[in-house]
Amino acid sequence: MPLVLASASPARLGVLRAAGLDPLVEVSDVDEDAVLAGLPPQAASAQVTALAAAKAGTVANRVADSYHDALVIGCDSMLLLDGVLVGKPRDAAEARTRWQAMAGGTGELLTGHAVLRLGGGEVTGSATDHAATTVHFGRPSNAELDAYLATGEPLAVAGAFTLDALGGWFVERIEGDASNVIGISLPLTRRLLADVGITVTDLWSH
Amino acid sequence: MPLVLASASPARLGVLRAAGLDPLVEVSDVDEDAVLAGLPPQAASAQVTALAAAKAGTVANRVADSYHDALVIGCDSMLLLDGVLVGKPRDAAEARTRWQAMAGGTGELLTGHAVLRLGGGEVTGSATDHAATTVHFGRPSNAELDAYLATGEPLAVAGAFTLDALGGWFVERIEGDASNVIGISLPLTRRLLADVGITVTDLWSH
Repeated sequence: MPLVLASASPARLGVLRAAGLDPLVEVSDVDEDAVLAGLPPQAASAQVTALAAAKAGTVANRVADSYHDALVIGCDSMLLLDGVLVGKPRDAAEARTRWQAMAGGTGELLTGHAVLRLGGGEVTGSATDHAATTVHFGRPSNAELDAYLATGEPLAVAGAFTLDALGGWFVERIEGDASNVIGISLPLTRRLLADVGITVTDLWSH
Repeated sequence: MPLVLASASPARLGVLRAAGLDPLVEVSDVDEDAVLAGLPPQAASAQVTALAAAKAGTVANRVADSYHDALVIGCDSMLLLDGVLVGKPRDAAEARTRWQAMAGGTGELLTGHAVLRLGGGEVTGSATDHAATTVHFGRPSNAELDAYLATGEPLAVAGAFTLDALGGWFVERIEGDASNVIGISLPLTRRLLADVGITVTDLWSH
């Protein structure tokens, strides 16, 4: 059964590939601001889950004609920092300010997940949830922060840090699921797949 | 300054490469049992640190003629499970027994780290420490465990699981540093490098 990842994130694709899956990638064109604007005020976890569901739903509609029987996975990650949800920084200046606030402190990385099962071109199963991982940030020196910002990496990622790339030097510890921080929680995805009747090991490509 | 990784582990090399370093690999031929047999009875953390130091020291001696000025990093990982240190399982049967004991429970992944700095062909700086990460294991079904064992992955790794590959589906959460579970802690390595006078971002190859 084809597995479709409704995300442009190379980090998510990398997590899934390393974990034995070989998904097709179909990037959703969801207007995230419009999705959030259409929601009543709600918890951060509900926001990321709604965005994940919107992405998976858009892509499922698009691919249903091509793949009558398929699985579609959507995700959305944000960092909850001092009660505020933050995504990717707008520019290097914002990334620097963000890191100056995060250094030595903690944030909560939230990733919403949505799994849709298509059968005969229709959605026959749906499961959504979010996972939260607490991240304890290190204290990069000014020189280290300059070097990190110069790589451009913080600009490309929610929360302005990575766990599994250059940012990993500056994350002291986490509490929760590591893959959730990278962008897609493997244990949660396993549960959501089970909820729609799929055993993840049956999807392994090797 | 050349950086030498005294380890055959592709996982450690992958962590370092993803985090901006491009180390040379020189595998130590340390007889781990002999190192441990020569030690007084001591804590698990001291054992993995002693093994890491033995690996780094052996490789530093070997490369000192070729690289007068260099950094050598050695690591050793084991899983502390019910008070017993376990390395790689001997065979699939032992991996199955191990997983039946781990499922739904916790273990502590210990990685000893040793950083040696060579200057003029001599060791001019040395720093060692260990990091511990608590791992909460999921409960793979019998069919999932069969599929996992059939891949051979659990046989190749300390504790019979990975965090960042197929095993990641069956790790519910961790408390501590994720890279430490994979085999080399980035934040601890950053500190050990600083202890021998090196800023890690100065080693970034891109």
